[in-house]
Amino acid sequence: MKVGIIGATGYAGAEIVRFLSFHPEAEIVWYGSRSYVDKKFSDVFGNMFQIVNDVCKGENIAELAETVDVIFTATPQGLCSSLVNEDILSKVKIIDLSADFRIKDISVYEKWYQIEHKSPQFIDEAVYGLCEINRDKIKAARLIANPGCYPTCSFLSIYPLAKEGLIDMNSIIIDAKSGTSGAGRGAKVNNLYCEVNENIKAYGVASHRHTPEIEEQLSYASGKDVVINFTPHLVPMNRGILITAYANLIKDIGNDDIYEIYHSYYDDEYFVRVLPDGVCPETRWVEGSNFVDVGIKKDDRTGRVIMMGAMDNLVKGAAGQAVQNMNIMFGLDESCGLNFAPLFP
Amino acid sequence: MKVGIIGATGYAGAEIVRFLSFHPEAEIVWYGSRSYVDKKFSDVFGNMFQIVNDVCKGENIAELAETVDVIFTATPQGLCSSLVNEDILSKVKIIDLSADFRIKDISVYEKWYQIEHKSPQFIDEAVYGLCEINRDKIKAARLIANPGCYPTCSFLSIYPLAKEGLIDMNSIIIDAKSGTSGAGRGAKVNNLYCEVNENIKAYGVASHRHTPEIEEQLSYASGKDVVINFTPHLVPMNRGILITAYANLIKDIGNDDIYEIYHSYYDDEYFVRVLPDGVCPETRWVEGSNFVDVGIKKDDRTGRVIMMGAMDNLVKGAAGQAVQNMNIMFGLDESCGLNFAPLFP
Amino acid sequence: MKVGIIGATGYAGAEIVRFLSFHPEAEIVWYGSRSYVDKKFSDVFGNMFQIVNDVCKGENIAELAETVDVIFTATPQGLCSSLVNEDILSKVKIIDLSADFRIKDISVYEKWYQIEHKSPQFIDEAVYGLCEINRDKIKAARLIANPGCYPTCSFLSIYPLAKEGLIDMNSIIIDAKSGTSGAGRGAKVNNLYCEVNENIKAYGVASHRHTPEIEEQLSYASGKDVVINFTPHLVPMNRGILITAYANLIKDIGNDDIYEIYHSYYDDEYFVRVLPDGVCPETRWVEGSNFVDVGIKKDDRTGRVIMMGAMDNLVKGAAGQAVQNMNIMFGLDESCGLNFAPLFP
Amino acid sequence: MKVGIIGATGYAGAEIVRFLSFHPEAEIVWYGSRSYVDKKFSDVFGNMFQIVNDVCKGENIAELAETVDVIFTATPQGLCSSLVNEDILSKVKIIDLSADFRIKDISVYEKWYQIEHKSPQFIDEAVYGLCEINRDKIKAARLIANPGCYPTCSFLSIYPLAKEGLIDMNSIIIDAKSGTSGAGRGAKVNNLYCEVNENIKAYGVASHRHTPEIEEQLSYASGKDVVINFTPHLVPMNRGILITAYANLIKDIGNDDIYEIYHSYYDDEYFVRVLPDGVCPETRWVEGSNFVDVGIKKDDRTGRVIMMGAMDNLVKGAAGQAVQNMNIMFGLDESCGLNFAPLFP
Repeated sequence: MKVGIIGATGYAGAEIVRFLSFHPEAEIVWYGSRSYVDKKFSDVFGNMFQIVNDVCKGENIAELAETVDVIFTATPQGLCSSLVNEDILSKVKIIDLSADFRIKDISVYEKWYQIEHKSPQFIDEAVYGLCEINRDKIKAARLIANPGCYPTCSFLSIYPLAKEGLIDMNSIIIDAKSGTSGAGRGAKVNNLYCEVNENIKAYGVASHRHTPEIEEQLSYASGKDVVINFTPHLVPMNRGILITAYANLIKDIGNDDIYEIYHSYYDDEYFVRVLPDGVCPETRWVEGSNFVDVGIKKDDRTGRVIMMGAMDNLVKGAAGQAVQNMNIMFGLDESCGLNFAPLFP
Repeated sequence: MKVGIIGATGYAGAEIVRFLSFHPEAEIVWYGSRSYVDKKFSDVFGNMFQIVNDVCKGENIAELAETVDVIFTATPQGLCSSLVNEDILSKVKIIDLSADFRIKDISVYEKWYQIEHKSPQFIDEAVYGLCEINRDKIKAARLIANPGCYPTCSFLSIYPLAKEGLIDMNSIIIDAKSGTSGAGRGAKVNNLYCEVNENIKAYGVASHRHTPEIEEQLSYASGKDVVINFTPHLVPMNRGILITAYANLIKDIGNDDIYEIYHSYYDDEYFVRVLPDGVCPETRWVEGSNFVDVGIKKDDRTGRVIMMGAMDNLVKGAAGQAVQNMNIMFGLDESCGLNFAPLFP
Repeated sequence: MKVGIIGATGYAGAEIVRFLSFHPEAEIVWYGSRSYVDKKFSDVFGNMFQIVNDVCKGENIAELAETVDVIFTATPQGLCSSLVNEDILSKVKIIDLSADFRIKDISVYEKWYQIEHKSPQFIDEAVYGLCEINRDKIKAARLIANPGCYPTCSFLSIYPLAKEGLIDMNSIIIDAKSGTSGAGRGAKVNNLYCEVNENIKAYGVASHRHTPEIEEQLSYASGKDVVINFTPHLVPMNRGILITAYANLIKDIGNDDIYEIYHSYYDDEYFVRVLPDGVCPETRWVEGSNFVDVGIKKDDRTGRVIMMGAMDNLVKGAAGQAVQNMNIMFGLDESCGLNFAPLFP
Repeated sequence: MKVGIIGATGYAGAEIVRFLSFHPEAEIVWYGSRSYVDKKFSDVFGNMFQIVNDVCKGENIAELAETVDVIFTATPQGLCSSLVNEDILSKVKIIDLSADFRIKDISVYEKWYQIEHKSPQFIDEAVYGLCEINRDKIKAARLIANPGCYPTCSFLSIYPLAKEGLIDMNSIIIDAKSGTSGAGRGAKVNNLYCEVNENIKAYGVASHRHTPEIEEQLSYASGKDVVINFTPHLVPMNRGILITAYANLIKDIGNDDIYEIYHSYYDDEYFVRVLPDGVCPETRWVEGSNFVDVGIKKDDRTGRVIMMGAMDNLVKGAAGQAVQNMNIMFGLDESCGLNFAPLFP
């Protein structure tokens, strides 16, 4: 299987390279990078020295479509939707790591992203690539909207209770915390070491663009309109997302029953680990891996349930899930090339 | 003014030393430390080399009471309440940084702390030392219950809206994040560098002992019984607490009105800084200082208000507020010895 | 191939578990851990949840010798030498990650380690497991002394010039920097997050126990007695060793010639990467992997050469090299189970 | 005393603001910043919110010279030398934190900095502002070349033995480690959080521009030409410099004698702390303060002495020493506005 990557020198793109360089069925033949054309990929990501010897190229998607089986676009919002067309989609599968095709309601997309959508005709066709939920649709898809990092972790943590109708969907508050790689590799003062280190802050309060993506997916799960609070925070660490979600229980159900539900949803899912009762997820236990760790705690005093999820934002939250989608699309084992332990410490 | 410190070689105790070593009116004459008796204080805290030349002593509170004007107890729960008696309180003022005298309902204290209270007769007399709220009572107090770190930051962030009756007190959810110095200086595997670094986790979910302290103070402010969710998280940084609090607004009020209320409560408070609208608090902007930075955001979509506060857990959350209390008790300017800028980066 | 690990719940031991859990030819059947007997391994190292389901056991080496093909001892100095005997070595291969069998001169060992050696009769037989240097001896060995972290990185960085006789061996100064996992998982105040974070310090100045190990190996390489300065420093990061070594050149040789020599020594070595001229090694480019990155710079002004090496202390500096040794001993491909990219960021 | 700062919104400039905002004799009347003209200073450095209410201005040095008593230039190399002239120097004292006037040999400056010097006529007059060494000259100076961070720490650590003629000046190797604030606040990919965190690397090997500055000062101290190796490293922390310097002793002298010499040089210097024998300097013990901690260790095996120094690069290495120079120039107590304890943790 031949692979092209557009945006290979961002953190998510480089993570795809890390996985596919050792993937038994895939071969990267195009390292696309606007900023580093003609530069060796390993000059930019020294970890790949003597593993990847190729040179970065530009963004010629037409040429790419002729030469590869699948294209990953790990690029800013708006780029993928400006590149795809029927001709390209007829020749090659596309896995888009941007938000362009995640939201079905174009007006919601355009409002939150402040971008005009350039190819609305493919929004319906695009499959939201949350593998554990949409596996069957992914198998047949030409165009995958790879989920956002926060939405993946949030949704998988809340999904069983939403689906079972056990929580008040409009009581949901998601307080999220992310490592700094989620902010990308752009040279911005706000992301300098000394600005991020020894600090924690909220950002995008009541306005973060992952909010409607989470709401849409939760509404599919629950069959209800959903409006939530979502507050991300920037944490001084490289990788990892932790979400702490709160919701009011609307049925009288015990902590044990809740765990039973989670187990029934996830025990067959290799990449979702329901932790033992009483154990809270921690990002260190998933670092570098495609696992999502989930823990739950019912609070009898308040009648709320606290749902927690930990995940590596660059793996299950981006490149890992993208490769998992590729595996599903090409009939491979879902964990192919993703089957390794988290790195600790 | 002569000062004794019991528990001088914990992080909070050492922070009291840092402040009082340069305080114009105070002189530390007793560096109490069980673990380091007869060792030079600066052998334990090398930052104080050639600034503090004294040697640590044991915990003889009776002797202390004869020689000093005020005692700080920066010790584990249960110690201060086992040491105080009428004789001591008649001779010396005590500022207790533990939780022993914070909670007025002894059954609540004993349930959450799992300790039998050794001197319940002083609970009523003890003044909860949240300076901005209880200034007048503090002036006359013999025994100060210095507030917990999370409660200080949580309460000051929520207080104006609670007091004004603008939020549903039982809808409050406080998602808190703390640097690691809050875990103390005990040698525990969980607090090792490699265990904390590159990680974020929740702990004490639905069971953290600062919960009833926050609830009690909020009930005084609002005149209602209050039951909340409080979830602390451990962040890989040395200092700093950030709280992100959510509540349902029960009156129709605009974002600007909310800011006006906060300004009316805090504009005369030197150590509480209401940030400009749109600016979120960050722990880096208060590091090393006694400031609490507060920011607010109304979410029109959900009808909730998000209240945020940032603070240095060792300063306003412990040693700084303790010194502020001392200043008030002894008729000094409240900021005496605490008047310096936060350290950044 | 059946494997037993004694000391499986230290950082190095757990790293062996990480590698062997996905090693195609090895199966761990004994997770030895004094501190966690009867506790699930994944309760201690949560990253291995649902990957390793076994429970930790004690240290019965006699029983182990009957059931496994190879034992890793990732234990404090003195333990392995107190356990081995001819009977055990006749049944099972041992790879010892401690220093017990690294130093051939027992008096040097006993002086620097302040321990009486319990089985000096095996010192001569033990092979110093620096794979790239002693590959042939390793193949036939029963007992491997897995090299120390600093010695591995130091030696591989200096070896070509030492072997070629191009540097004054007594002019060598090695200034080393290590991440904190090198200090182990013991609960010590000095290794707490707040003590290590935002700090750098030297330790063991002129007295660190890796000094004689480095000197001995360099003397074998150069054929001369070698006395060096070695100064390790503790760096606030989890993993990684960087060594910066200085030596006086004793022949007139250009920077290019030096690179040519390094390439001739290492181009066939998969795990040693000679970086392009002008590129300095960085620990981030090797994190989680078994690579050692080497860079060199001749200083024409001073006539010295600066030799730099970067490595993951837990991988090539401990568990990775131990597995590499196992692979060699059992006739497997050297990179079996170790063939993955470094993790960045 | 009225003060103007050119370059107030870099890390060093902002640190001058931090000190002078609480300095009893100084008042900042000009916050110069090219990038933030008309923006509130506290919008850029939120720690100064409600402490500094002024707005940033441009770089009009002529106007500044009319209104202030002293100007700090915390600007890139080449700027200060392009701004000064006799008229300005006749009206105002200048403390330049750049390298423009540090090196007396203009050809050395121009070679290492690759800049043409714009006002060579003032090089001789400029006083190298290493307070402990040049105190008397500083008193009378109009133009101060505030020393570089590495040179300050390196020189003070080596000075006593260099001055006493006890070490071979051409055997000196300085291996230095710096926190990331030393790299400045420019938006560069290399200084992003994820690029610096969990990494250590050398940079500027055999070519760093502080090398000739250190060599020149050491040659003054020793009366000999000096050529050294100087290798800086980037450490994942905000603040702090540690230098580890090696030199061959040329006289037979004991460790105690060496300490005696250091004490005789520094016991009257408030900001230089000679640590107890056996204690190594650590950057955490000086963070935020103007102290330099010095430790020494003779290695009997190699005949070398290891000299170590720790310092806050932004304080004694930049802004603190600049204020110390100002204090000396204006006849104030040297520690005025600088008299506070290091912050730990």
